[in-house]
Amino acid sequence: MEKLLKHLQTYILISENEFQQIGMYFEYFEVKKKQNLNSFKNISNHNFFVIEGCLNMYFINNKGENQSIQFAIENWWITDLLSLYHNKESSFYIQAVEDCKIVSISKKNQDKLLTKFPKIERYFRIIYQIAYGASLYRIKFLYEASKAERYFHFIKRHPEFAQRIPQYLIASFLGLTPEYVSQIRAKHIS
Amino acid sequence: MEKLLKHLQTYILISENEFQQIGMYFEYFEVKKKQNLNSFKNISNHNFFVIEGCLNMYFINNKGENQSIQFAIENWWITDLLSLYHNKESSFYIQAVEDCKIVSISKKNQDKLLTKFPKIERYFRIIYQIAYGASLYRIKFLYEASKAERYFHFIKRHPEFAQRIPQYLIASFLGLTPEYVSQIRAKHIS
Repeated sequence: MEKLLKHLQTYILISENEFQQIGMYFEYFEVKKKQNLNSFKNISNHNFFVIEGCLNMYFINNKGENQSIQFAIENWWITDLLSLYHNKESSFYIQAVEDCKIVSISKKNQDKLLTKFPKIERYFRIIYQIAYGASLYRIKFLYEASKAERYFHFIKRHPEFAQRIPQYLIASFLGLTPEYVSQIRAKHIS
Repeated sequence: MEKLLKHLQTYILISENEFQQIGMYFEYFEVKKKQNLNSFKNISNHNFFVIEGCLNMYFINNKGENQSIQFAIENWWITDLLSLYHNKESSFYIQAVEDCKIVSISKKNQDKLLTKFPKIERYFRIIYQIAYGASLYRIKFLYEASKAERYFHFIKRHPEFAQRIPQYLIASFLGLTPEYVSQIRAKHIS
């Protein structure tokens, strides 16, 4: 839980003592590569913080394929927030790209935590403010970048993802086929 | 400011008396249809709440055209949150689709407000949590829907926008050309 404490302290003032109490609202668990989080915790009522590893949130598209929508590495939160907020079943799944150490909080516990420690509201407000702001830039990028630009821009801007996530998942996240990514990589190298 | 108070009260408990003080951090102004907010307030350091009217946030794409990225009608907040958070110049502009009544808050005042009234953190946390959650569904939709589905799904799901926003702006928001939207509408009616 040390990592979560440090992440909280990046945004808000929080003592070790307070964290002892705060930590009780969270659960720690581990998943192996390729395992689905849904087998452990329902993503419609849990929020996940990555201590170690990498998670892939995806949906199943019209062709029956897994389409990545979001990755999370160390210090990232990931879940279907709309489903969490509205108590509705999620359209997304979360799978481990690597062996992962995860901290989760249930919706119930998050509500209790925020009531007892309102200062955590600030932490999540900042996290979601940045995430929402970034999502508008992501949509801007989807609209204006060519397919090749999508790929090369992503690997240049996010080497921390590009180095550890298999190419077919990066292709999926960018709305491209793995074949297309192989082609433009080969072209780029030659 | 009544509308802002009511919106705050949807998410947090707040008295009229508290709102008297809170209201002092906001500024009220009006813009005429087609006017740009940037001429009034810099979108890199203000957040905007629509009291009445409709705003269109856009960027200028590679072809030199205005590309819509987000609309805001009554009770919506709109700005470039990344630019606001990181104190960086924005890539976006905001223009009035109709005559508008706006309440704005500067970054400085928002910081002061949140320090003095931490309960407002909860309000913004919920707003951004929902907005970020919805943005993932928007990206999912951009990936899986056909061009025609984008248009018909949007006007069905968001009649409150479809009825008042000119068709060329809706087309732009959906990443379509106005000509294409005219075509599929004609086909749909015939």
